[in-house]
Amino acid sequence: MLYQTLNPHGGDLYGRPVTLDFSANTNPLGTPEAVRRAVTEAAARLDRYPDPFCRELVAAIARFEQVPETYILCGCGAAELIFSYCAAVRPGRALELAPTFSEYSAALEAAGCRVERYPLDADNGFLLDDSFLSCLEGGKWDAVFLCNPNNPTGQVIARSLLERIVRLCHEKNIRLFLDECFLDLTDGGREQSMKEDLARYPGLLILKAFTKSYGMAGLRLGYCLTADPALLTAMSRTVQPWNVSGPAQAAGVAALGEAAFLHRTRQIIREERRFLQQSLEEMGLRVCPSCANYLLFYSPLPLHQKLLEKGIQIRDCGNYHGLGPGWCRIAVKTHQENQVLVSALGEILEEC
Amino acid sequence: MLYQTLNPHGGDLYGRPVTLDFSANTNPLGTPEAVRRAVTEAAARLDRYPDPFCRELVAAIARFEQVPETYILCGCGAAELIFSYCAAVRPGRALELAPTFSEYSAALEAAGCRVERYPLDADNGFLLDDSFLSCLEGGKWDAVFLCNPNNPTGQVIARSLLERIVRLCHEKNIRLFLDECFLDLTDGGREQSMKEDLARYPGLLILKAFTKSYGMAGLRLGYCLTADPALLTAMSRTVQPWNVSGPAQAAGVAALGEAAFLHRTRQIIREERRFLQQSLEEMGLRVCPSCANYLLFYSPLPLHQKLLEKGIQIRDCGNYHGLGPGWCRIAVKTHQENQVLVSALGEILEEC
Repeated sequence: MLYQTLNPHGGDLYGRPVTLDFSANTNPLGTPEAVRRAVTEAAARLDRYPDPFCRELVAAIARFEQVPETYILCGCGAAELIFSYCAAVRPGRALELAPTFSEYSAALEAAGCRVERYPLDADNGFLLDDSFLSCLEGGKWDAVFLCNPNNPTGQVIARSLLERIVRLCHEKNIRLFLDECFLDLTDGGREQSMKEDLARYPGLLILKAFTKSYGMAGLRLGYCLTADPALLTAMSRTVQPWNVSGPAQAAGVAALGEAAFLHRTRQIIREERRFLQQSLEEMGLRVCPSCANYLLFYSPLPLHQKLLEKGIQIRDCGNYHGLGPGWCRIAVKTHQENQVLVSALGEILEEC
Repeated sequence: MLYQTLNPHGGDLYGRPVTLDFSANTNPLGTPEAVRRAVTEAAARLDRYPDPFCRELVAAIARFEQVPETYILCGCGAAELIFSYCAAVRPGRALELAPTFSEYSAALEAAGCRVERYPLDADNGFLLDDSFLSCLEGGKWDAVFLCNPNNPTGQVIARSLLERIVRLCHEKNIRLFLDECFLDLTDGGREQSMKEDLARYPGLLILKAFTKSYGMAGLRLGYCLTADPALLTAMSRTVQPWNVSGPAQAAGVAALGEAAFLHRTRQIIREERRFLQQSLEEMGLRVCPSCANYLLFYSPLPLHQKLLEKGIQIRDCGNYHGLGPGWCRIAVKTHQENQVLVSALGEILEEC
């Protein structure tokens, strides 16, 4: 089927017999009630154009992130901001990790940029280490894309290394695009964010999403933070004025009041990730250490199709640069759902 | 205030004391109940990524427009499709009318294109006439942007002229971007559409929106039609995979079932446009003949600010290429609302 070969991502359940989706890394608790209520209320004023400047939402983000309002630009999902960043900056040579989220290179290629890749080592758990600094020292990059924690590995970059990377990029005049979309769902995420260094490093841009943290993938809402206002102006000129819908703006404001929901989510993810990791390892699967709300693992058996036959969708990572057949990613979901996956995997592995 | 100087469009009510908005050309009846219901229902599944291929919506559009599914690409509002078209085509030299909707040139300039303008004549009611053909004959355009009916004039291009333009563009290998976003609310709109000629002219692309017809400006949903599948693929690569939100997709499917709503809307617009035109002319204002759901008029007095003081927002068209101070656009709304506007205008003109 044409569609299935075209979409390189997880989370596409349409036209498939999926009852349980482990392929999209969204909040296991779903969407907070306050967000759903905000969308329902917004349904009463759909005929109004959305605020092109997201004034109320920007004010709420500024309070939540503790950054000035002028640092903030909202987008129709974080993914749109990746595209508008690449269209505005047009870096001649850009560097990304392998494996990593594939939309950086999709957006870079759409903007006519050359993408080069820094391979992470599977035997090292795909952990970024100091040798990345030598790579940066040696090359002539216009922009570097990092994802922290990295997707699909779930690995967090050590804080001291990340600080050295940020400083080095600043010294060498390399723009740094730092995707922190999963950080709110990550152990110790608050301490990992580089947002307090934005003022010092205007070449740094941080990407954030509502998608994952607040179960809002369907609504499309993300934002980015940078101390470079000219970049935000240039990015906003590459897209239409009304890119963020009215319901998404209202939902975003509601979501930022849900601190307790986020806290509870992180607790569940921590416990359930441990459960999943342990269960998979007991089955003899090779699991990559993760701090995030998803797990990368390797299996020599073709699990994806067999799970789909049981109504369970996982993310086959065979199409990632730097990975290959056998690598799969699963989201950490609720205990009941995780148990269903573990049982299904057990059955399949026993059969084989 | 910074924001007010930045947004060149109508419909921005945020942070202003507006009780009645005539500045946005949306359906006077607002949003159909079925659309609001679809959004409320979609609020239950916000944590799902939207279908990146809008499968169900594309099937519904194909039935509604009577075109093959392969002709259709959906966007986050018609405005996003203007940007993705320009980013994909990157016409070296593009021609648009003056005055016309300003997002064509915004998108062209964002894609690094040179924009040239064909001036319409106020004394001729801004009607496009045969001399446009000579212009096309004489120049070396890569793409031409037309809006039918034109915004902000409300003028429809004569069918026979439009057919000659489409043929000439085809012969001269000029891409034609034809914006039919207001056609569903226009007198005799169905007969004006060029969609039946798509198969014959693969260089033709037609733009359509849900925004105006179904009061869905806040949701962001538009689509385009062309028989050039390679163009649609190229356009889709300039944007993220999940550009159309889940609620927008559901709302679009619901909207296309609202034929009776559209029919009733057109009837009201026809009557109310006549009422507004007559009332404004009786006050001595110069009104441009319109077939659409909005009216362009000229007043030597600065009405915009005085109306705003009464809580009524109209569209000051002073910033349109080809217009200047004194030109204003108003949406055709319900009779009660139109009466409020007419009374307010009467009071202001009496005072002056």
